[in-house]
Amino acid sequence: MPIYKAPVDDTLFILNDVLGIERYNNLPGFADATPDMIEAIVGEAAKLAEEALFPVNLSGDQEGCKRRDDGSVSVPKGFKEAFDLYREGGWLGLAVPEEFGGQGLPYTLHTAVGEYMSSANMALTMYPGLTQGAIAAILVHGTDDQKQAYLPKMVAGTWTGTMNLTEPHCGTDLGLLRTKAVPTGNGAYKISGQKIFISAGEHDMSDNIIHLVLARIEGAPEGVKGISLFIVPKFKLDAAGEPGERNGVSCGAIEHKMGIHGNSTCVMNYDEAEGYLIGAENKGLNAMFVMMNEARLGVGLQGLSIAEIAYQNAANYARDRIQGRSLSGPKAPDKKADPIIVHPDVRRTLMTIRAFNEAGRAFTLWTALKSDIAHRSDNDADRQTADDILGLMTPILKGVMTDKGFDHAVMAQQMFGGHGYIEEHGMSQYVRDARIAMIYEGANGIQALDLVGRKLGLNGGRAVMALFKEIGDFCEENRSNEKLAAYTKALKKGLNDLQAATMWFMQNAMAKPDNAGAGSTDYMHLFGLVVLGYMWAKIAKTAEEKLASGETARADYLKNKLITATFFMERILPETALRKARIETGADTLMALDAAAF
Amino acid sequence: MPIYKAPVDDTLFILNDVLGIERYNNLPGFADATPDMIEAIVGEAAKLAEEALFPVNLSGDQEGCKRRDDGSVSVPKGFKEAFDLYREGGWLGLAVPEEFGGQGLPYTLHTAVGEYMSSANMALTMYPGLTQGAIAAILVHGTDDQKQAYLPKMVAGTWTGTMNLTEPHCGTDLGLLRTKAVPTGNGAYKISGQKIFISAGEHDMSDNIIHLVLARIEGAPEGVKGISLFIVPKFKLDAAGEPGERNGVSCGAIEHKMGIHGNSTCVMNYDEAEGYLIGAENKGLNAMFVMMNEARLGVGLQGLSIAEIAYQNAANYARDRIQGRSLSGPKAPDKKADPIIVHPDVRRTLMTIRAFNEAGRAFTLWTALKSDIAHRSDNDADRQTADDILGLMTPILKGVMTDKGFDHAVMAQQMFGGHGYIEEHGMSQYVRDARIAMIYEGANGIQALDLVGRKLGLNGGRAVMALFKEIGDFCEENRSNEKLAAYTKALKKGLNDLQAATMWFMQNAMAKPDNAGAGSTDYMHLFGLVVLGYMWAKIAKTAEEKLASGETARADYLKNKLITATFFMERILPETALRKARIETGADTLMALDAAAF
Repeated sequence: MPIYKAPVDDTLFILNDVLGIERYNNLPGFADATPDMIEAIVGEAAKLAEEALFPVNLSGDQEGCKRRDDGSVSVPKGFKEAFDLYREGGWLGLAVPEEFGGQGLPYTLHTAVGEYMSSANMALTMYPGLTQGAIAAILVHGTDDQKQAYLPKMVAGTWTGTMNLTEPHCGTDLGLLRTKAVPTGNGAYKISGQKIFISAGEHDMSDNIIHLVLARIEGAPEGVKGISLFIVPKFKLDAAGEPGERNGVSCGAIEHKMGIHGNSTCVMNYDEAEGYLIGAENKGLNAMFVMMNEARLGVGLQGLSIAEIAYQNAANYARDRIQGRSLSGPKAPDKKADPIIVHPDVRRTLMTIRAFNEAGRAFTLWTALKSDIAHRSDNDADRQTADDILGLMTPILKGVMTDKGFDHAVMAQQMFGGHGYIEEHGMSQYVRDARIAMIYEGANGIQALDLVGRKLGLNGGRAVMALFKEIGDFCEENRSNEKLAAYTKALKKGLNDLQAATMWFMQNAMAKPDNAGAGSTDYMHLFGLVVLGYMWAKIAKTAEEKLASGETARADYLKNKLITATFFMERILPETALRKARIETGADTLMALDAAAF
Repeated sequence: MPIYKAPVDDTLFILNDVLGIERYNNLPGFADATPDMIEAIVGEAAKLAEEALFPVNLSGDQEGCKRRDDGSVSVPKGFKEAFDLYREGGWLGLAVPEEFGGQGLPYTLHTAVGEYMSSANMALTMYPGLTQGAIAAILVHGTDDQKQAYLPKMVAGTWTGTMNLTEPHCGTDLGLLRTKAVPTGNGAYKISGQKIFISAGEHDMSDNIIHLVLARIEGAPEGVKGISLFIVPKFKLDAAGEPGERNGVSCGAIEHKMGIHGNSTCVMNYDEAEGYLIGAENKGLNAMFVMMNEARLGVGLQGLSIAEIAYQNAANYARDRIQGRSLSGPKAPDKKADPIIVHPDVRRTLMTIRAFNEAGRAFTLWTALKSDIAHRSDNDADRQTADDILGLMTPILKGVMTDKGFDHAVMAQQMFGGHGYIEEHGMSQYVRDARIAMIYEGANGIQALDLVGRKLGLNGGRAVMALFKEIGDFCEENRSNEKLAAYTKALKKGLNDLQAATMWFMQNAMAKPDNAGAGSTDYMHLFGLVVLGYMWAKIAKTAEEKLASGETARADYLKNKLITATFFMERILPETALRKARIETGADTLMALDAAAF
């Protein structure tokens, strides 16, 4: 049977020791996040994830969601009870301003506990996850009345939310969308059209569902310049602000998906449903991007979450399963065979996943901290720098962590042999669930294009130059520290490859944009490798310092950090050279075949 | 809806033009395989795959197999009718000697058409696939009586076969198996025990099922030296040799698997079932390896098969789906958006899959030809060399083609965005089906160990040295041909990395075997890259020669081969340097952590 234990110690090490979150206690909400408070919150989240969400994960996958003929949808057994504990614990509002019922704590902390929730039950955690995206959009673009009407209930989890973008003929290219909005004359709109792939679109866990829907107002320009965003509640609100009359929106079908069976992914039909404009007319994409950016960080986190639970189960199995003997002679001579963890190839698998997970955890929390600084600092320069890095990291975090999260779920499944292919051990579920994260909120190819086509050149490359300087300075500052030299040397080499590839784009992609597209995915992964390498170098520096200061209680833990950092530098980071070489081959060969010849 | 078209032209190009199969017409069975005959057989196979097997592939996945309370199992709707056409077409006996009802044609041809069958319906093709493994074992190790009793019916497909190795506590390490065999005194044995993951273990498509079962004869030595192989028919044969009394073997359950739902993967319970020893007592593993080796080539082929059908659907979708615009300006200005095939990153994906598939097809057929030479040549030296290469290639073909087949099914699925994640388009099925091929017939980590631990050093490294010489000679011979220089130069670089890594093992793994295990998977892939690069160089040479000789009918086809070869050399083959670098880091860092720390 699958196991899960939230990696609380690792979260605390990163927050407190590596990132030094205490240094930010001048930011709003951070003063409340004392080390004791953080430990208590993270501990409570671990308990909820392990004891409430996780026990219904595998059963939820096997049972799935069910749509009845009347269009109502029921979630798997036990989901509602687990979600009740989730909302009662106030987890939806952890980082939401107090005036709307939240706790105003750091988004960084929200991210830290979010990892556990998605590890324990990704499909279930998507219900509050989508709600948080909708909350974010209403917070930024809603009127005061809209905020008052919707946010307190959504923050409490009494109501949930959704994002409605995709239509059958349009996903990435939202300019093609056809759902229309006709003004009613009283300030509202009638929304009509069909949306597909709507996560948490219909279910029986909340009193109302607040759909945020992209549509085109009658007579609006074609393309992306004519798209507006609307609030469409499942039940219209009555005079008291409570769910009243049923609105003209319904679930037409549940998609048959590869995974996340516990989440109701719906075809949503809008038939003159009453909707209310949120944000400016024809500026719907701007409003939607508030949701999208936060959602992309959340999806990147899902990559880590699934890789973590898959790793834990694989490590556990590798210690337990006895089969064959070590190449260097029996290690468990009293048994008929050795546990398979004696095999270097098994350890290679586990070390690879572990090295990505631990650095990935640091990467997501470091990025979340940038988000907090960007949104909460009162220093203009700090805010701008943080926002630059946040924007640059968003496609990398989403694309790299979900690609790797999936790959590593597959590698963990492989440890189980045939037992990994049958559903009982849960490994198949992790692979199937992790697969969607590479696709939704912008398929990873789109993330790579966002990176090379938009983020790289933004403000004259200000973000990328700032980050290169930060990493370069780190290498320089620690160059003479012989305990860190091996890490910084490898990191510097990776950084050089990244800088060379960046330069290559500047010289070759301006005149010929296909050269950017041809290298985009390799560049995204090259960048991810260097950032993860930077995280490992920071972790190693912290571990060395703690060991040097005589910290004995965590001595083994800290030494294992150094070993895993070494593994990353030796085996993983050198991939930067290959990625760079591929980028430099450009687009010509790729574009040479006729489309018909494929 | 999914599409599939068997790549007949490519098969014929490889067989006739690249491999020059006509040159082998002195081998038994090859004289009948004239170019016309080959074209006719391949064409018939394509028709069967496209028109009979493929139409029930997606529905078979969705319906799955069903076990009734009495232990009987029914296959999905339409499977029996499709299998009837398969057996009536004589496909089971294509390469089996004529004396047992086969056609005695080359195994190479059997492999060529096998690709189509597994593309069209992998789950269904496993029923005859397992039967062929059983036929191979009986051919080599059976007595004349056993051959006469079982082979004609199995070759006709009236009866099917299975392989029973795995038990709940033992897969890789067969020495642990517990199924026991007690002599009855009349030359037979009573077999008792439980086997799991038995593909095609029970179903309603054949009159009898011939199980080949590994078991330990009472009093036999422990470990692998006490294992024997038995024939256990589902129905014992009556005096006329027809299925009579039901034997003590039954299906206890069907496994709930991630994919290949159309194949009945069974828990098989043996309760004093009557079994007959095949091969020598306690030499069961030898007999089993006849099946295993052939099955490993067949599984490697499955990797290609799934990658091929996934590629075809992805290419088709990329040409049809309009979404967004080309980075270099609109390509379909009359439409609202361009087809996504205009994007370099989409083409990178398609070219990557294509480059592996086309070289992979050459690799499997080239290896199959070695098998034919090894089994049919009357020249001792030829036979030995071919057998050496066949043994060396078996783990590489199995491991690399299935790892890549899965990766590429995932990449093809990614082209579809959200539509790839729902089951209707078939892409999820290809991913889920492809996943098992990395696991069964020896998980790919075991293939890598077989390569570095056994095959590499066999006979003083004779096989590997012969192959290095063959590839090195090819590079040398074509070095001055400027049309081929780019290909041979890249290939030589890859070969140098492979030779250096091989040398590193010789110097570092003798004294410390963990160094071999630590690099085994990287080495397997490094080797695969070089062999696939060799295939591309051979294909490019053939294409250049055909073009130079003024062949105009296939000019575009041949030019596309050169483009794809260039892509492989530019983007894929340089990975050899990374693989080599990883190997040279050795085992120390991998082995440093305590098992408990994972």
